[in-house]
Amino acid sequence: MVTAAAVTGATVRRVGVVSLGLIGGSVARRLVAEGVEVHAWNPSAPALEAAERDGVVPHASIASLCAAEPDVLLLAPPLRAMADVIGEVAAHVRGATVVTDAGSVKVAVTDAARGAGLSARFVGAHPMAGTEQAGYEASDARILDGARWALTVEPDTDRDAFLRVAALVTGPLGGVVRVATPAVHDAAVALVSHVPHVFATDLLGLVGGADVRDLALALAAGSFRDGTRVAGTHPRRTEAMVVDNAAAVVPVLRRAVADLTALADALEAGEPVGEFFDAAAEVRASMRLAAPEDPAATVTLDGDGWREELLDATRTGLVVGADTATVSVRVTHAPA
Amino acid sequence: MVTAAAVTGATVRRVGVVSLGLIGGSVARRLVAEGVEVHAWNPSAPALEAAERDGVVPHASIASLCAAEPDVLLLAPPLRAMADVIGEVAAHVRGATVVTDAGSVKVAVTDAARGAGLSARFVGAHPMAGTEQAGYEASDARILDGARWALTVEPDTDRDAFLRVAALVTGPLGGVVRVATPAVHDAAVALVSHVPHVFATDLLGLVGGADVRDLALALAAGSFRDGTRVAGTHPRRTEAMVVDNAAAVVPVLRRAVADLTALADALEAGEPVGEFFDAAAEVRASMRLAAPEDPAATVTLDGDGWREELLDATRTGLVVGADTATVSVRVTHAPA
Repeated sequence: MVTAAAVTGATVRRVGVVSLGLIGGSVARRLVAEGVEVHAWNPSAPALEAAERDGVVPHASIASLCAAEPDVLLLAPPLRAMADVIGEVAAHVRGATVVTDAGSVKVAVTDAARGAGLSARFVGAHPMAGTEQAGYEASDARILDGARWALTVEPDTDRDAFLRVAALVTGPLGGVVRVATPAVHDAAVALVSHVPHVFATDLLGLVGGADVRDLALALAAGSFRDGTRVAGTHPRRTEAMVVDNAAAVVPVLRRAVADLTALADALEAGEPVGEFFDAAAEVRASMRLAAPEDPAATVTLDGDGWREELLDATRTGLVVGADTATVSVRVTHAPA
Repeated sequence: MVTAAAVTGATVRRVGVVSLGLIGGSVARRLVAEGVEVHAWNPSAPALEAAERDGVVPHASIASLCAAEPDVLLLAPPLRAMADVIGEVAAHVRGATVVTDAGSVKVAVTDAARGAGLSARFVGAHPMAGTEQAGYEASDARILDGARWALTVEPDTDRDAFLRVAALVTGPLGGVVRVATPAVHDAAVALVSHVPHVFATDLLGLVGGADVRDLALALAAGSFRDGTRVAGTHPRRTEAMVVDNAAAVVPVLRRAVADLTALADALEAGEPVGEFFDAAAEVRASMRLAAPEDPAATVTLDGDGWREELLDATRTGLVVGADTATVSVRVTHAPA
């Protein structure tokens, strides 16, 4: 049996996809368009048949998909099914296949991968892409254009496995990569994805429960529609993200409660509230992106310290390319 | 002296604008393009000179602007200057001029108008339009295309004054009108504008204060940018809206704190949280708009009960036209 350590970083000719939902389907469509051989399994037949018509090689089981020995196997089931899928994959994966995923939380998923004995060939991934739609019929290769992906590194992450996933994401998938540990990833997405979903959800709930609901909805302008767009995500999907990332979401909610209570208290007492509004303006200004034509620097990942080098290199930059030993990193925004 | 009661509803040939900021400037540009004679005063000269080049008749003072006896005088200063502007207008307004405003809170503004003795000729207004920009240079007639305006009625609002402002908004300004009392307006905009601004501001503050700030900002996808777009508004402008509407904002913040605390508690305890997410989906579904080609019904506003008729007629509909005695109302979304 070939071990994961024998993987050569950037060879991605065949990709397997478990579950053809919004993300799995978009990945499959994009890879087919890029000339990559795509194999897939999906729990329901109609989406798998549609994907076959779109050029995907269908498999009747995860076991069969694993037997095709794809260079990378991407797991994109709903979060609630991820642990079962990982168990099934662990039972059947073989050869030099590297396993990655598209789940929006990483501690729970990487823990499950470790528990299933997959660590040596597993690299966690999370594409910051999507719409409020779901399912293969809503999937679209374009939602991955320039998408930001988080890839996770852990103390036992294999370097070649990492480079292979990075090459897939920055190559045929057309994305860019930021590297993080699973815990740091989860803390970050709690801030920029999960808690924003909760806030948008609560805004709608506050309106829905109000006496002036009809007038409020009638007056709602574009800013309200923009601000609550993510609350159009299916409630079960949002719920799963928040529940699976509860460890990171709860502390942020507690800070939000403290902020909003302090603001309400100050407003009631007629005390100054300017500082609350100034802090946001400063953060928003720092979201300016560097120009995409800025040159990338090449970082060679060698020796034992490669994980720290990667984390360092992506502190203010994104991996925009990867080969068998190096990554290309472009600075994306001014550091704080 | 002609009293406000002598006003004929729908005659709007000359409009005065106090302050040529984002909204005042956009109103002036649009009215000039529609062939309405526009007079204006602005506290700083450059914007007034620019507006003159764009076809506006400049005035050196509010007194001079009032002396031009516009059919409608629209007050569009920053909220913090509104009380002073109202005092100055009350000292000089004459003839059949109807006074309206564009402030984002209505109790404070209508109280100020009443206190200045303007009630008989005053109709409060609030266009749900704008961008995160400010100033005449950022103004643009197009932000008013189809904009939703709230107009206020109070027990002493003059019918003809109301109809004249409604005719201006639904005619040359290209907007639609929802009618509300000042207090109901303020409760509604707290929900769909002010608290959403606070939430967006807090999201940025939470990211800014986090250890993982850089990674979080780097991973932020379109949904985060959409959800925090309104936090790009100048901090002083957002602060003024929230402070001036504190009476309506604080109770909503308290409810939000209760919601978020309950969610955090349930997540921590591993209890079900599905209901929180379901409620939002139901409200979002009810935001569907009726087709714009749906026919409008005509409502004749006569007798003492016209204010209640108006409030009733706009409970599930918008005024899309007004003449000297009637309004045309089109249902805009399914009632709750």
